[in-house]
Amino acid sequence: MTNHEFYMDLAIQNARAMKGQTDPNPLVGAVIVNNNRIVGIGTHLKAGEPHAEIHALRMAGNEAEGSTIYVTLEPCSHHGRTGPCAEALVEAGVQRVVIATLDPNPIVAGNGVKILESAGIEVIVGICEQESKKMNEVFNKFIVQKKPFITLKAASTLDGKIATHTMDSKWITSEEARYDVHKLRNENMAILVGVNTVLEDNPELTTRIPNGRSPIRIVMDSTLRIPLESKLVTDKQAPTWIFTSQAYNKDKKKKLEDQGILVFVTKGTESVDTSEVVEILGENLVSSLIIEGGGNIHASFLEARLIDKIILYMAPKLVGGQNAPSFLSGNGVMKMADAINISNMTIEMIGPDIKFTGYPDYVNEEKINQ
Amino acid sequence: MTNHEFYMDLAIQNARAMKGQTDPNPLVGAVIVNNNRIVGIGTHLKAGEPHAEIHALRMAGNEAEGSTIYVTLEPCSHHGRTGPCAEALVEAGVQRVVIATLDPNPIVAGNGVKILESAGIEVIVGICEQESKKMNEVFNKFIVQKKPFITLKAASTLDGKIATHTMDSKWITSEEARYDVHKLRNENMAILVGVNTVLEDNPELTTRIPNGRSPIRIVMDSTLRIPLESKLVTDKQAPTWIFTSQAYNKDKKKKLEDQGILVFVTKGTESVDTSEVVEILGENLVSSLIIEGGGNIHASFLEARLIDKIILYMAPKLVGGQNAPSFLSGNGVMKMADAINISNMTIEMIGPDIKFTGYPDYVNEEKINQ
Repeated sequence: MTNHEFYMDLAIQNARAMKGQTDPNPLVGAVIVNNNRIVGIGTHLKAGEPHAEIHALRMAGNEAEGSTIYVTLEPCSHHGRTGPCAEALVEAGVQRVVIATLDPNPIVAGNGVKILESAGIEVIVGICEQESKKMNEVFNKFIVQKKPFITLKAASTLDGKIATHTMDSKWITSEEARYDVHKLRNENMAILVGVNTVLEDNPELTTRIPNGRSPIRIVMDSTLRIPLESKLVTDKQAPTWIFTSQAYNKDKKKKLEDQGILVFVTKGTESVDTSEVVEILGENLVSSLIIEGGGNIHASFLEARLIDKIILYMAPKLVGGQNAPSFLSGNGVMKMADAINISNMTIEMIGPDIKFTGYPDYVNEEKINQ
Repeated sequence: MTNHEFYMDLAIQNARAMKGQTDPNPLVGAVIVNNNRIVGIGTHLKAGEPHAEIHALRMAGNEAEGSTIYVTLEPCSHHGRTGPCAEALVEAGVQRVVIATLDPNPIVAGNGVKILESAGIEVIVGICEQESKKMNEVFNKFIVQKKPFITLKAASTLDGKIATHTMDSKWITSEEARYDVHKLRNENMAILVGVNTVLEDNPELTTRIPNGRSPIRIVMDSTLRIPLESKLVTDKQAPTWIFTSQAYNKDKKKKLEDQGILVFVTKGTESVDTSEVVEILGENLVSSLIIEGGGNIHASFLEARLIDKIILYMAPKLVGGQNAPSFLSGNGVMKMADAINISNMTIEMIGPDIKFTGYPDYVNEEKINQ
């Protein structure tokens, strides 16, 4: 680890610690070093409050002059709710700015660097770039594409099954893994299932951790088969939005709306198009979405190449069964060579279970993350 | 790590290094310590040659007197091709014997310890016991049960598929993983597939590594549908044994035997019983067997609880498909609670792929491994 990486890593640690409290802003951290001593650290705490650089400059005081600042994201160039940080760095007499990644936000995107360089400040870009991008993967996609960052989450046995051939599925994974899922729900703005999952499991889809925030619960239901007595309709624990097709039951729609449910009628004559759902969610400022099944829903989102990230909890057990459902159904690809590769995969143990996290290789990282 | 574990670990390292060259004897290592100095190390090199203790005693010479010997397996008590090691230790004046695990061989099984203790030698049993048992898992089962130690080996995608819905399967895993499979074949005496695998893939089932030893190739084929031109029949690279039922084609049997193929006619009227196959293999001194599929063969062996160990290579890719075959087919269990748990699971990366190694929890370790 070089000195650059050491300081940038500290900035990233501080940024990451604010996860969940900066929305809709990205996580950003900063470290100021003068004469080999750390003289200031900063992090963005909350939208509307000072950016990371400003906190760090305040801590550094006079020692900001002639210093090097490490910042996980390009300093801003626009007058938003706070002044442009690039100008503040110039005024403080910073000598060098080391940046992990440029701001994907089209209204910054290189303009921060321009301000710094035209003031004669040395700028280095790209230290710990991947870590910084990954930390703000949701923000990075949404700010550019105005569509939610979508995570497919599944829990299966070692042989890929989400239930036995009798459709029994309780429980596949351990309590620890299920707790981890609740943390995931807490971090996402919305969660989506197919109506079959509602009919089979009558799930709550809430976040059951202390002080947890439940996601908006989204159901794809082309004819509005969702039971009026299902928990998603009656429990009022979080908003429920239903996406239906032109073939929807009008009487049912009214009854659902009477319960406070939002019903989106999409363009499809008989089915709901996944891309249209994603677009509408983006228009409604849903920046992050988990897809929680079942196998056909997973397949339709994956085949439409809408999944950005995959999280799979795998229990060390085998159920077998030609007719036991897998977490990925549909038709699947024709040739093994056409399989969707998962890149940047990490593996960790959650209790007795294995958690895989990875990214489908069709995700054009350049396009989405920079 | 205590001193005991340190020395025993060294003995285990030396034992393990002989993997593949001691058959049909187990792997055994020994370390002699006198006055906190290692004065002798030994390992069993080859059946018919001295046991580990004897090599270590020779190296120690006079310093064996008053020493502690660490040995991974109980010293033998019987006059086999070499004299009983327990007596040699008594004669050498060893003061203490630390043993990882008792010998499961019924003709030793505690008798070695008795000889030592009646000579006044202190005996400690159970240091690094699990590591030692695992190292000789094949031997430990075969010596007691006279049946092969059976490893189910499969290669699948992350969603558990062994082919796409069009039955395309080349390649699922990386070259590195496939090389690892060849090492596995090299270590096993036999490999078994169903006739459908022969009909679909026409495999060689040989070991393609330098100086590799190919396993006996075993096919379950209830009516002798195996093509006479298949590689297993024609290539003469290793023996091929076919297990058939009473419904076998007599004319085909003769033609196969003319090619040097061994045909076992089992008792089943229309199908071949997996337990009978295992019993016959044991009678023919096959001590280790890999099952390499397909999904129905895997399921039938697993459902009959004949699998001792599972090795699964999983490629980080997804193919999907309700009709794409999984590595475990058949009916499967009824309830998720009846799933077969995999215990003592280890995970390692082989190139880009994940290798899972584990043991079905129905394996009664007490019965098989001690």
